[in-house]
Amino acid sequence: MPTFVQILDFIGTFAFAVSGIRLASAKRFDWFGAYVCGFAVAVGGGTIRDVLLDVTPAWMTNPVYLVCTGLALLWVIVFGRHIVHMNNTLFTFDAIGLALFTVVGCGKALDLGHPFWVAIIMGSLTGAAGGVIRDVLINETPLIFRKEIYAMACVVGGTAYWACWELGANGVVCQAVGGATVFVVRVLAVRFNICLPTLSGPEDEGKK
Amino acid sequence: MPTFVQILDFIGTFAFAVSGIRLASAKRFDWFGAYVCGFAVAVGGGTIRDVLLDVTPAWMTNPVYLVCTGLALLWVIVFGRHIVHMNNTLFTFDAIGLALFTVVGCGKALDLGHPFWVAIIMGSLTGAAGGVIRDVLINETPLIFRKEIYAMACVVGGTAYWACWELGANGVVCQAVGGATVFVVRVLAVRFNICLPTLSGPEDEGKK
Amino acid sequence: MPTFVQILDFIGTFAFAVSGIRLASAKRFDWFGAYVCGFAVAVGGGTIRDVLLDVTPAWMTNPVYLVCTGLALLWVIVFGRHIVHMNNTLFTFDAIGLALFTVVGCGKALDLGHPFWVAIIMGSLTGAAGGVIRDVLINETPLIFRKEIYAMACVVGGTAYWACWELGANGVVCQAVGGATVFVVRVLAVRFNICLPTLSGPEDEGKK
Repeated sequence: MPTFVQILDFIGTFAFAVSGIRLASAKRFDWFGAYVCGFAVAVGGGTIRDVLLDVTPAWMTNPVYLVCTGLALLWVIVFGRHIVHMNNTLFTFDAIGLALFTVVGCGKALDLGHPFWVAIIMGSLTGAAGGVIRDVLINETPLIFRKEIYAMACVVGGTAYWACWELGANGVVCQAVGGATVFVVRVLAVRFNICLPTLSGPEDEGKK
Repeated sequence: MPTFVQILDFIGTFAFAVSGIRLASAKRFDWFGAYVCGFAVAVGGGTIRDVLLDVTPAWMTNPVYLVCTGLALLWVIVFGRHIVHMNNTLFTFDAIGLALFTVVGCGKALDLGHPFWVAIIMGSLTGAAGGVIRDVLINETPLIFRKEIYAMACVVGGTAYWACWELGANGVVCQAVGGATVFVVRVLAVRFNICLPTLSGPEDEGKK
Repeated sequence: MPTFVQILDFIGTFAFAVSGIRLASAKRFDWFGAYVCGFAVAVGGGTIRDVLLDVTPAWMTNPVYLVCTGLALLWVIVFGRHIVHMNNTLFTFDAIGLALFTVVGCGKALDLGHPFWVAIIMGSLTGAAGGVIRDVLINETPLIFRKEIYAMACVVGGTAYWACWELGANGVVCQAVGGATVFVVRVLAVRFNICLPTLSGPEDEGKK
């Protein structure tokens, strides 16, 4: 019987995998390439986190992530033409995944005895690094460095998680506050199109 | 006295390194860049596998991979103009490398007690991830996500390897069956131009 | 009270972070993206090294790297328009960082009992891999594979470090000789525009 957090974890994995598979389909990848791209988005961030924390990556201990990615691929193949009408649903799933992955990453690092700044970075890596891997694989400049607040939402939520932890709140409260913060920051950022300031460099500097 | 598997390992490393060095030369990399690119193709997949399995990467325990890459660079520098006439030889070497790297990766994961789906992924990573690293370094969309069956051959061969293992076959039989499967699938895919289906996404989706 | 080596380490981190942030600003990244890019340049090479050596990455044990990157971002935001007149200063900082990171990486691998060729590779990874990660993130072909001697300076300096170590010199002498070699090779290469030979491949090979 899966717990509530596990069900959210499956939803997040599914949403992240769909996001990778859709971008892969825009690049004309074949089914296998799309599956790999979806899997990379879903587990890439957690894998980097677990390698840095020196524990076995979560997807190597439970085949559910492979199954979730397979279901996401099937879903895109069957409903591909209709997905464009479901952008709001997918955005909500993605924000849920971002929130949940962030609190999972934060909690894992704190449980292993790492200091708070490591925990916040691990939470952000879990949430946002999968998208960076996806963009590197499909040969695009990572969107999260230019779009509305995305990884920044993980940093804010991770900080909230850690604040609750320091105040002695129990695990469920930390997760709820941290996750809700990520979700709310992300939704507000997209709703009101809030962006961080851009650095204004000389235009030609990149060409050197 | 090197064993038969070790000799195949050297041939595979050499073939993979040549493939990286040739693409680097098309991008006008200097000798050092070409060497790094060739080395990344040859050992990149195995390094990712060993980091995930939490063991010391193979190339850190034996300098033969560095020497093989050096020989590959020398060979491209000396025979560069004639390599174009040797595409069939190089393709055969590459398929041998793919087959051998896959069975090495599978076997290593199973020996460490991991479940079969991890072993198949580790075999595929060992065989195919080096090529993905190469394409990321030279800033191209990874070919293996769009070309004829490549990484898929690793998955099929890894499954064959695991089936033999489950049936109680000894190590050599598993390696022979798994490796031959990868080789045959890869050769047939290129000979008859077999591709996986492509996802048909809206053309403009990637531009968002 | 920080030691002399630690002060050099901070300077190197700062210089590497500035290099990442400046390229990010040319790509119109926002502040967060620029910070991540600068941090990746500053700690990316050392992180790959520590993952391969199976030790905890240095930045996870000391927040000074995060602070250094923050100072670098602040500096680029405040003095952005004037940085173009400070290219010589920045180049010197970068060469100091390259030299120091190389000797740190070499020393760490030798202390852990790895053979000399691993130590030289680890030194070069520490010095040069951050720049490769930066170029992959901003979606450019890595410069170090085509520019004047850069990573090659790490290889030469690492070899010098190891030669001193073999001759029984004490740690400080190894560090001084290795670091000075990297610095001198790098400065001479840029001063006299020394490049390694380029592989001349058929122009169309990359398009296959």
